Amino acid sequence: MSKFFTSRYQALTPYTPGEQPRDMQYIKLNTNESPFAPSKKAIEAAARAAERLQLYPDPTYKALHETLAAYHGVTSDMVLATNGSDEILNFAFMAFCDAESPALFADITYGFYSVFASLNHVPYTEIPLKSDFSLSVDDYIGRKGTVFIANPNAPTGLALPLSEIERLLAADRERVVVIDEAYVDFGTESAVSLLERYDNLLVTRTFSKSRSMAGARLGYGIGSPALIADLNTIKYSTNPYNVNSMSAAAGLGVMADEAYTVFCCKEIMETRVYAMTGLKKLGFEMTDAKGNFLFVRHPKMGGEAIYLALKQRGILVRHFDRAPIADYNRITVGTRADMQTLIDTLADILKES
Amino acid sequence: MSKFFTSRYQALTPYTPGEQPRDMQYIKLNTNESPFAPSKKAIEAAARAAERLQLYPDPTYKALHETLAAYHGVTSDMVLATNGSDEILNFAFMAFCDAESPALFADITYGFYSVFASLNHVPYTEIPLKSDFSLSVDDYIGRKGTVFIANPNAPTGLALPLSEIERLLAADRERVVVIDEAYVDFGTESAVSLLERYDNLLVTRTFSKSRSMAGARLGYGIGSPALIADLNTIKYSTNPYNVNSMSAAAGLGVMADEAYTVFCCKEIMETRVYAMTGLKKLGFEMTDAKGNFLFVRHPKMGGEAIYLALKQRGILVRHFDRAPIADYNRITVGTRADMQTLIDTLADILKES
Repeated sequence: MSKFFTSRYQALTPYTPGEQPRDMQYIKLNTNESPFAPSKKAIEAAARAAERLQLYPDPTYKALHETLAAYHGVTSDMVLATNGSDEILNFAFMAFCDAESPALFADITYGFYSVFASLNHVPYTEIPLKSDFSLSVDDYIGRKGTVFIANPNAPTGLALPLSEIERLLAADRERVVVIDEAYVDFGTESAVSLLERYDNLLVTRTFSKSRSMAGARLGYGIGSPALIADLNTIKYSTNPYNVNSMSAAAGLGVMADEAYTVFCCKEIMETRVYAMTGLKKLGFEMTDAKGNFLFVRHPKMGGEAIYLALKQRGILVRHFDRAPIADYNRITVGTRADMQTLIDTLADILKES
Repeated sequence: MSKFFTSRYQALTPYTPGEQPRDMQYIKLNTNESPFAPSKKAIEAAARAAERLQLYPDPTYKALHETLAAYHGVTSDMVLATNGSDEILNFAFMAFCDAESPALFADITYGFYSVFASLNHVPYTEIPLKSDFSLSVDDYIGRKGTVFIANPNAPTGLALPLSEIERLLAADRERVVVIDEAYVDFGTESAVSLLERYDNLLVTRTFSKSRSMAGARLGYGIGSPALIADLNTIKYSTNPYNVNSMSAAAGLGVMADEAYTVFCCKEIMETRVYAMTGLKKLGFEMTDAKGNFLFVRHPKMGGEAIYLALKQRGILVRHFDRAPIADYNRITVGTRADMQTLIDTLADILKES
């Protein structure tokens, strides 16, 4: 830290991204990336956009917003594209949280929520999940504050039914509820349909997972025109050209290739079942995984020991060294072959232990 | 504005990007874009990166930081790449400004400085330029606060000599001075060489202008390892993967094609002289342009009238409707042909007026 660093941020504990060691070639199952290449249409559109890179993007991202709006059946003033969904989430913390509207989120969820709250000097409360990692919306009803719920949740993988989200929205229309749908395309019902009836709902999405574009940094929010206008005030005061031309073009490309996204999601969901079955046979316990990842533990071996043993054998998974999830590992659903290697390797590890 | 929007940001006046009308095809001289296509090596590198978009970028951007560090003759812990130079500037306002260190910048300069100050609730003082638009560092010496100077400045186009920047740095080593070098490659001496002696200096750069990559949103800062560490604390608390893979790759591509950048800058500087000569013949008055743009006025016609007359004839320039620069227009240096069309069109306009 320099002597110039403002006292406002000296206590910040930044987010820790998943490790990316370069000492050897790993089977990378630690950052929930897709095992599938991006859509050919996305690649081609990005390459074409690269040829015109001397020009700024359209800061209104008209084509992209209109395409996303059509996809979701909303108007284009209800959509805002951002530099990954991290940016729309940060904008939401900026726009809709303060001392009067503190942030409320689960104690076990996307680790960035508490970082965004700290960054923006927003008070926050981490509301404990049940012991089975399920979330009860009743814990949020009657509490003042802006709610952030990842649905499905990470790293637990559990999803909330739409009826519960609606109950939460209806209980207090004077606060914003943000539903982070990063993993929704792997079998969870989206809350977008509730936008018709609730102007206190913001849904956030990403192209990183189901659309195989983590490297593009493309996310977006969907909400009432008034909420999106507020977020645009933040955007135009932060970085008007927040999405680069190539990612905007790639986003349009993959949206024009929906069959490919559907195919990838179907494959991942099938492989998820395959991997869960294989791991259960080895004695693993796990949550009802609704994302493109599993959340597993073994009664006979600790979470860190499994993580380290896998890493030594060239497989990276994500271990969170904190109670009450230290026994678990979050494992991305990769290709069928990756999952077979994972299962075989874990069988060896358990035999040796 | 929604009823949910925090009072903290309700008074924000966002930045206004240069207009991008789509009603007809314009000669676009209003956002200081390069008239040259990006380097072929940048295009190829971006296209290759698009094929692996399912993976997150390396959040440390090791290859890019090492290449930039080698280019500037510094160590890689002195460099931080960002989503355009707007992001590194915002990070600098966040990290190095507060009530004790208010922001100081010229009254006529990049319009985003005051927006960043407001966004971050940082007090700021706009220090008037001299009547000839020159900046005197003496106006900043003896004043408390973090200094932001665009060198060369926009929209005035004027540059400060390195000796003046050093005098400013030496006068108060207990505050940060940010030198925004967005336009430095068009003939101004960089302050990077001063980093050897001053740990209170942050230099910001962009790939948008001289490297023909405005659409890529790639900028960076260069400063002491301690300053860069502070900015990394902000980055990892905001958006760890802030630069997408394609732009990072394109950045490496263009850095491997330095001769092309040198060629483009030389062409633009020659065309700048050509355009200035032509406009002077028409009676235009102008500053000593050091960027890839001119800042001109005509004694017989107002700035807005010229702007509107040009727009009607298919040429977009940037007009700032505020004293004391309302008589001026900022005109990007395009191709030689663009400049000839501009000169011919202005000759017609003046004849008709």
